Amino acid sequence: MRIDVLTLFPDMCEGVFSTSILGKAREKGIVSLNAVNFRDFSGNKHNTVDDTPYGGGGGMVLKPDPIFAAVEHVLESVQDESSPKVQDSEIAEEPSAPVPVKPRIILMCPQGQTYNQQIAEELAREQHLIFICGHYEGYDERIREHLVTDELSIGDYVLTGGELPALTVIDSVVRLQPGALGNETSAITDSFSTGLLEYPHYTRPAEFRGWKVPDILLSGHHANIELWRREQALKRTLERRPDLLDTAELTAKDRKTLDLLKEQLGQS
Amino acid sequence: MRIDVLTLFPDMCEGVFSTSILGKAREKGIVSLNAVNFRDFSGNKHNTVDDTPYGGGGGMVLKPDPIFAAVEHVLESVQDESSPKVQDSEIAEEPSAPVPVKPRIILMCPQGQTYNQQIAEELAREQHLIFICGHYEGYDERIREHLVTDELSIGDYVLTGGELPALTVIDSVVRLQPGALGNETSAITDSFSTGLLEYPHYTRPAEFRGWKVPDILLSGHHANIELWRREQALKRTLERRPDLLDTAELTAKDRKTLDLLKEQLGQS
Repeated sequence: MRIDVLTLFPDMCEGVFSTSILGKAREKGIVSLNAVNFRDFSGNKHNTVDDTPYGGGGGMVLKPDPIFAAVEHVLESVQDESSPKVQDSEIAEEPSAPVPVKPRIILMCPQGQTYNQQIAEELAREQHLIFICGHYEGYDERIREHLVTDELSIGDYVLTGGELPALTVIDSVVRLQPGALGNETSAITDSFSTGLLEYPHYTRPAEFRGWKVPDILLSGHHANIELWRREQALKRTLERRPDLLDTAELTAKDRKTLDLLKEQLGQS
Repeated sequence: MRIDVLTLFPDMCEGVFSTSILGKAREKGIVSLNAVNFRDFSGNKHNTVDDTPYGGGGGMVLKPDPIFAAVEHVLESVQDESSPKVQDSEIAEEPSAPVPVKPRIILMCPQGQTYNQQIAEELAREQHLIFICGHYEGYDERIREHLVTDELSIGDYVLTGGELPALTVIDSVVRLQPGALGNETSAITDSFSTGLLEYPHYTRPAEFRGWKVPDILLSGHHANIELWRREQALKRTLERRPDLLDTAELTAKDRKTLDLLKEQLGQS
């Protein structure tokens, strides 16, 4: 998988690319991560990438030219890599055309589709992702209309730039690549991937400042522990994110447990 | 405002703290940003901060001791800073006790409350925030029960750690501090803060690869431009995020426009 991030702050992205799971995935060759400074494609001697908006009003707007040029530069460099090198002896033959990989070109913006785990799984199957990150400017609408394939928002809050959102999406996508997570890290049952919030975890010490681990977890009775954990996951989801119960996969027993829990919580 | 981030990857946080708006806010003294490696508070010679879960199952769980110790270290350092220095001549007098600042201690986790702009505005009024970032481990439940004041999730997707979520929250909170954004950057009408998605922006060139800026924006007729922009913002919100219309502040005219737009889109 290849991922390019168009940004005015490539160092900020590089710092994250080289850390932890992303850094290891890159070292293992699972993903190629590149930060591209689109100021290098400004096409003017002052290196400006934004300008005032037509129609007036405050703020600055990212010009279309540098963004289009930077994306096209990335596409050309992929083309060059995937083109077969023609040997002298083969010149007479028709070179087989490389299969073009259509990258997803993703604009990070508050107007985008709200990102979720389902989109993460979809993006994780792609071969090439290009992210465009603005930084407190708006985007010229022609970038949206004629260049990007997807617009994504990571949530309903205002940020100073698209870098943290792009890095967040990249983190969630790269960890889904085979081999990206070691065995020791992948085993924890993820919230969202099971449809329920996680049950409570406890580790040593068995007593910390007078607060004890629940007896059941020390009982060694695995069937009872499984029952307790499922009930706790249902309880936590019911209390904190009841909306998730609409789409979670629930057994008949789960529904019975939920009815009891609702009764206890005075919701029935 | 002071912000401490407890993490196993302080360098990753520092890279973001020193960039762009966060870096400038720090330079101006608007915010003090600190990354604290809680491995330094492991209390054991192997520097382990996690252990296997009680009750079995895969994955690792963050132990309570290092997190409690790191938070307490931060609280003590604040106490030291805010204690008035007692002069020799004042020893006889009762020193006025410093007003203790109760920090918000925020756990970044998928089970947390879904972060939004309203919570950003609330956190922006605090004097001290402490973020706890796990990294693919679970948290010992006693951290949740006896230490943290808030649990936050930035969205419904699985990440490898709490660092990008914490940095995202910090970015959204720091930009709300007076003086953090320059005049040139604060004027763009933000999505979410108006309750509607933004209208389309255009800047030079007036024609790019044959794609023209809408005539209205070149007309110089400001009242008409305002009308067009409001209609576009309503249209975009209706098409992409109709849920936002439930809480947006709408005039009678806006509602009329929405009815017309719905008719055009065949929604009425």
